[in-house]
Amino acid sequence: MTPDDLRFDAHGLIPAVVQQHDTGEVLMVAWMNREALAQTIERNETVFWSRSREELWHKGATSGNTQRVVDLVADCDGDVLLIRVDQGGDGVACHTGARTCFHHPLAS
Amino acid sequence: MTPDDLRFDAHGLIPAVVQQHDTGEVLMVAWMNREALAQTIERNETVFWSRSREELWHKGATSGNTQRVVDLVADCDGDVLLIRVDQGGDGVACHTGARTCFHHPLAS
Repeated sequence: MTPDDLRFDAHGLIPAVVQQHDTGEVLMVAWMNREALAQTIERNETVFWSRSREELWHKGATSGNTQRVVDLVADCDGDVLLIRVDQGGDGVACHTGARTCFHHPLAS
Repeated sequence: MTPDDLRFDAHGLIPAVVQQHDTGEVLMVAWMNREALAQTIERNETVFWSRSREELWHKGATSGNTQRVVDLVADCDGDVLLIRVDQGGDGVACHTGARTCFHHPLAS
């Protein structure tokens, strides 16, 4: 599968699940457009599309917490990406300073 | 965080990353609306909203490959769910018969 085979949504975006390659921790989910994906492949570091700021966002460019890409895998439908990375910098993926963005247990 | 604190999108949906709780494998990503999430919590098995069929979808209801929920975690923004499960049945999450939906390496 190549980037041209992916199914971007009506906004030209595809969700990307970012996973620490060795521990299996799911660090975050963010969105990519075609350009973000192209830059991710070129830099070998994650680049996303910020839906709030409406701009490309090279993860860690200011914080130093870049994510080195280990591999990229598309799902069966080609509408989700799984990006296995090595979380660099302080090993922190979340803007709150937490290791992973998933730190709110859901109570029913 | 409770379901009422989550941020569903303009279509009333939130993406859910499904992960095998012990191995860390990312099995699939699917979508939930409020009712799917409520049923997931009530059944303790994953229930999604099928965007193509526009109906609730109790994962594994026909195939037997249900997913028992181990825990649910929201991300820092409350707009993505991570659901750790025990993949039951034949241990197969993907409709193609593969263990996980993520089996297409992306070539640049």
